[in-house]
This record gives sequence, structure tokens and C-alpha cells, in this order.
Amino acid sequence: MRQVLAEAAFQLFVERGYEETTVDAIVARAGVGRRSFFRYFPSKEDVVFPDHEGCLAEMTAFLAENGGGDPVATVCDAARIVLRMYAANPEFSVRRYRMTREVPGLRTYELSVVRRYERTLAGYLRERYTGEADGDLRAEVIAAAVVAAHNNGLRAWLRSGGESDAGAAVDHALGLVREVWSRRERHPAAVAPQAAWADSLTGDDGREVIVMVAPKDAPLWRVVQRIEAAIGE
Amino acid sequence: MRQVLAEAAFQLFVERGYEETTVDAIVARAGVGRRSFFRYFPSKEDVVFPDHEGCLAEMTAFLAENGGGDPVATVCDAARIVLRMYAANPEFSVRRYRMTREVPGLRTYELSVVRRYERTLAGYLRERYTGEADGDLRAEVIAAAVVAAHNNGLRAWLRSGGESDAGAAVDHALGLVREVWSRRERHPAAVAPQAAWADSLTGDDGREVIVMVAPKDAPLWRVVQRIEAAIGE
Repeated sequence: MRQVLAEAAFQLFVERGYEETTVDAIVARAGVGRRSFFRYFPSKEDVVFPDHEGCLAEMTAFLAENGGGDPVATVCDAARIVLRMYAANPEFSVRRYRMTREVPGLRTYELSVVRRYERTLAGYLRERYTGEADGDLRAEVIAAAVVAAHNNGLRAWLRSGGESDAGAAVDHALGLVREVWSRRERHPAAVAPQAAWADSLTGDDGREVIVMVAPKDAPLWRVVQRIEAAIGE
Repeated sequence: MRQVLAEAAFQLFVERGYEETTVDAIVARAGVGRRSFFRYFPSKEDVVFPDHEGCLAEMTAFLAENGGGDPVATVCDAARIVLRMYAANPEFSVRRYRMTREVPGLRTYELSVVRRYERTLAGYLRERYTGEADGDLRAEVIAAAVVAAHNNGLRAWLRSGGESDAGAAVDHALGLVREVWSRRERHPAAVAPQAAWADSLTGDDGREVIVMVAPKDAPLWRVVQRIEAAIGE
């Protein structure tokens, strides 16, 4: 029944447009009563995006349980919950993606859903960064970057018709955000303003590099000492 | 007349909600004819956001004229066009901000406008990064980060009732994005995979630091040489 209603709704959205399609029209097309519709879907939107509420709740619970560790890594993991929801039902997700591109009302609805995910991630980061310099700003910028990266990977998979590796695309995209922001988090200007700092990092291509930052007036012997320590690790 | 119509529309949006307010109701409240409305505003949305179309056009033209230089700096400058539009009319901007928070239909409309700015910036970056690794991904993530940073600064100003320094807040927010992404752009793993790289940078707090990156197996003498050159600059 759920499937029959969704099918009828999708047909009508494409034929008449999303805004113009009423629940009455959907139940008439499906040949069922109005009450049947609301037994399965709380509203018209939920025919198209039936799992976002559950997904948001899962994300919120996940973040509440993960108050420690690297905040950027945690929000990346939280974003993957959305991907799993899409990947659990590739055919439906791909069809919806194609329809959403054609129906302005659905695009608008999707934008507001994406915005809710972004706000959830930003709220978590804001709390983690409480009392830190630019905490609110970093929370919002990182949340926006995580959502954009996640959606880039997700869209690549949807465009492939659900054929490519969704997890790999999203992991790669989120990896870029983590790399950029985790590097900043480890920036010695924030960590140890007076001391030279060096570390061994693994680049995008798997090669190990040594990264060093020091105040311009740091003694060169100390800088070299730190580099040697990083190489030796 | 323009002001009278906007005033009537704002009153009705607050009283009845945005979706429920028709153009007919607005002209009735303003005591003018329907044709007067459409002489000033192409649609109902344009009463609330009358300058976004012009602003998008200005942004597009600005980007078309600036195909060289640092791409991240260019999109930051393009985002400032939006700020200037808001700051040109503080009273109207603050009032609209307060109303938008209360009227869901306006929030949704605003989301779609923000998305258009983001797409415009991403489109520019995508072109600039053509042929580069992760060009599309970086374009989308950086555009999202720039928009989030811009809006963080803009919102701080709107919340202050238009009293604080809008330009300073947005410059500071965009500075964070530039710092993070420009550092990555200059990452030697992308620029010069085989050579040690060092440079003198100015940190958030105005202090100069030396940053060095080198392959883990680079000869130490070359690393030190590069650092000395960066200090000497």
C-alpha cells in the first residue's frame, strides 16, 4: 500500500507539479481512501522524503553519544548516516533524485531538509567549540563544508544511477574537509604559539610529508631539532 | 509607492503568513491597483527580496571579469557584493531579517536565494579548477564555506540591529576560509611533489610564522636551506 501510494504521488508530481498535487488527487489515483494515506505518511512531503525525520533523529542521537574525539571527524561520521539512508534503497533514491531535479517544489523542500542537517551538525560543533576563538563561525563553516562534500559524493552516486561506489565517493569527499580542517585545528599558532612544531603527515596520495611551523624568530637549531624528531617518528 | 506596497506586504505577511498573502490582498491594503504592484515588483517574493536578482547579476558580471588571481580570494570578494546590498539599507535589512525568522515561507525563499549565490560561486570555481584533482568537489565545498562564512558575519550584523561593523565581521569570517583554503592551495603535495617548500606567512594574530612542508625522505640540508630562504625573505 505504501508503495502504491508513493507510485501514484510520483506520477502526479511529474504530471502536474508538486505544489499542484493534493493528497486527494494522490488517493484518487491510487484508488484508496484519504485515511489510508495518512496511516502511511504524515504529510505530502513524506511520500517523497519518508526517511529524513528518522535520519535526523538518528543523527541527533549519534552526536549526543559522541561528545569526545575529533569534532570534525564526528560530524563527518554523522553525515554518513544520511548516505546510508540513500544507499539502503538505490532505486527509490535515484528515481527521486531525477524527479527532484524536474519539480521546483521538491527542490525547495529538499533544500530545507539539507539545511536542517547542516544546522544539526553546526549545533554540535558550536557546543564542542564553546569558549574557543571563532567557535560559532568555525562551527557553521565546517558544517556547511561537510554537507557540501557529502552531497557532492552522494550526487555522483545518484548521477551514476546508483551504480558507482557511494561510500567511496563520500569518504573521499569528506576526507578533503577533514584534511583541511584537521590541519587547521593542529595549527601551532593555536596550539603552541611560542614553540616550533613539526609533524609527519600522510598526504592525499599516500606519501608521507613533514610539516613544520615555527615563529619567524624561533632559533634555527630548535626548528631543525623538531624536524628531526618528526622524521624519526 | 514602492515603499507603501512593501509596507502593506510586510504587515500582511506577519498577520496571515507569507503563503496565505496574495498580491490582491497587498494592493487592497495599500489602496492601489494590481497593475501598480507589478510595475514595481515582478512577483510577491520581490517585495521582500527586491535586490537579489540585481545582486546575482552583479556577482556574475564581477566573476566574469575576474578570471585570474587567487580563485578563493575572488569568490570572497564576490560574496561581499551581497553584504554591500544588505548594508546599503540597514533598516529594511534588519526588519526583513526579523520577519524572515517568523515566516516559514520567507525562510524557504531565502534558502533558495542563498543556494543560487552558492551555485554561482561554485560554477566560477569549477571553471577555474578545470582539469585539477577534485576540482568539482573543491569548488562546491569552498563555495559552501564562503557562503556560510559570509552569512555568519552578515547575521551578526543583523542581530545587532545593524549597529555593528558589517564589513569587519564579514571580512573576518571570510578571512578564516581564505586562510584555510589558501594554505591548502599552496600545499606542496599539489604544487611541487618532489621538493621541500617553505614560506613565511602571517597568522591570525598578525605574527609571522615559517611554514615548511617536505617529503619525509627529502635531504635535511635542502629542508634547512628552504627554511633559511623563507626567514630571509
